[in-house]
Amino acid sequence: MSRRTPSGAAVLQPGVTAAITDAVFAELVERGYARLSMEGVAKRAGTGKSALYRRWSTKQEMVLAVLAEISVPLAEIEDTGTLRGDLRATVAAVAAWLTEPPFCRIVPDLVAEATRTPELAQAIAAAVGEPRRALGRGKLERAIARGELPADTDLEMAQDLMAALVYWRMVVRQAPVEPDYLDRVTETVLRALGATSRKT
Amino acid sequence: MSRRTPSGAAVLQPGVTAAITDAVFAELVERGYARLSMEGVAKRAGTGKSALYRRWSTKQEMVLAVLAEISVPLAEIEDTGTLRGDLRATVAAVAAWLTEPPFCRIVPDLVAEATRTPELAQAIAAAVGEPRRALGRGKLERAIARGELPADTDLEMAQDLMAALVYWRMVVRQAPVEPDYLDRVTETVLRALGATSRKT
Repeated sequence: MSRRTPSGAAVLQPGVTAAITDAVFAELVERGYARLSMEGVAKRAGTGKSALYRRWSTKQEMVLAVLAEISVPLAEIEDTGTLRGDLRATVAAVAAWLTEPPFCRIVPDLVAEATRTPELAQAIAAAVGEPRRALGRGKLERAIARGELPADTDLEMAQDLMAALVYWRMVVRQAPVEPDYLDRVTETVLRALGATSRKT
Repeated sequence: MSRRTPSGAAVLQPGVTAAITDAVFAELVERGYARLSMEGVAKRAGTGKSALYRRWSTKQEMVLAVLAEISVPLAEIEDTGTLRGDLRATVAAVAAWLTEPPFCRIVPDLVAEATRTPELAQAIAAAVGEPRRALGRGKLERAIARGELPADTDLEMAQDLMAALVYWRMVVRQAPVEPDYLDRVTETVLRALGATSRKT
């Protein structure tokens, strides 16, 4: 006999959560953050607004929880044992995250929205940016420990470099990339960081 | 006696053009590209739609002409005679362009819009991106001629570097910058390019 759920407990059905997650992504892609509404998400997910509010108290909280759940694991790169290998894998993961659906639509839209709402910018940084950066920082610290990077490496700038070049070329400029573009970015970052393992 | 304008000629009054330019910027900041309309711009400029269509045939053409007119001259940096000096001035100009009104609102909005409309991305590149990059390319070529940069410098990547770091940190992340941030970016770019004038 199956165990009965105590009456009154807030039970969150995984199937409903999955449907809401899909609906949030679809609404972000189609309508953008500014026009996304709790009503629209509930309707698309085939549930009621109460199901959303049982999980999150605001639209911002809901969107960031859903984004973080998918975006942060995408930054988990296997340790390759070398700085070059780790950088190459990281740059490729960033490029895939920023240029493939749904994030190629969602990220620029959220950036534009955040320029109007500093509080949203801070919330995005806390929910998505910082956890992703913490993963990248670990790789840089291991490279310092191995002697591949100077001990006084500017970790903040190093982390900016990995995403900045890809974002500017592929998202802002939407410019063509050379077949070996990700390799070139990797070598550029290695040189910028003064890595001992750099080719030139 | 002042010369009379031949009747029937398309005379564009500079005062009207200036009012339209101001109106385009104000509408881009307040409403964004997607919701900007010829009607809204005409109303704000205190003129008729015909005054707009006499100058430009579409909304996209009007917006890009107005943006280019202001944005491209902002990339005209005086020749400092050294790569470090030119880079420092360029990075500072890019930071001012991207982080001060009205462009701090307009650029991210256009980037988001362009991810939905590849044709808009190409038009922005042609009207604003390429003329600005041509100015930057001249400085890099002079540095190669002076022997400060290798002859086979990846000019495309070099130009990306100057804007990419600033855009990522200050626009996408909206993260705090160190007091000497622009100096650090300059040194990072010099190292990335393998400049002979780099400090380390």
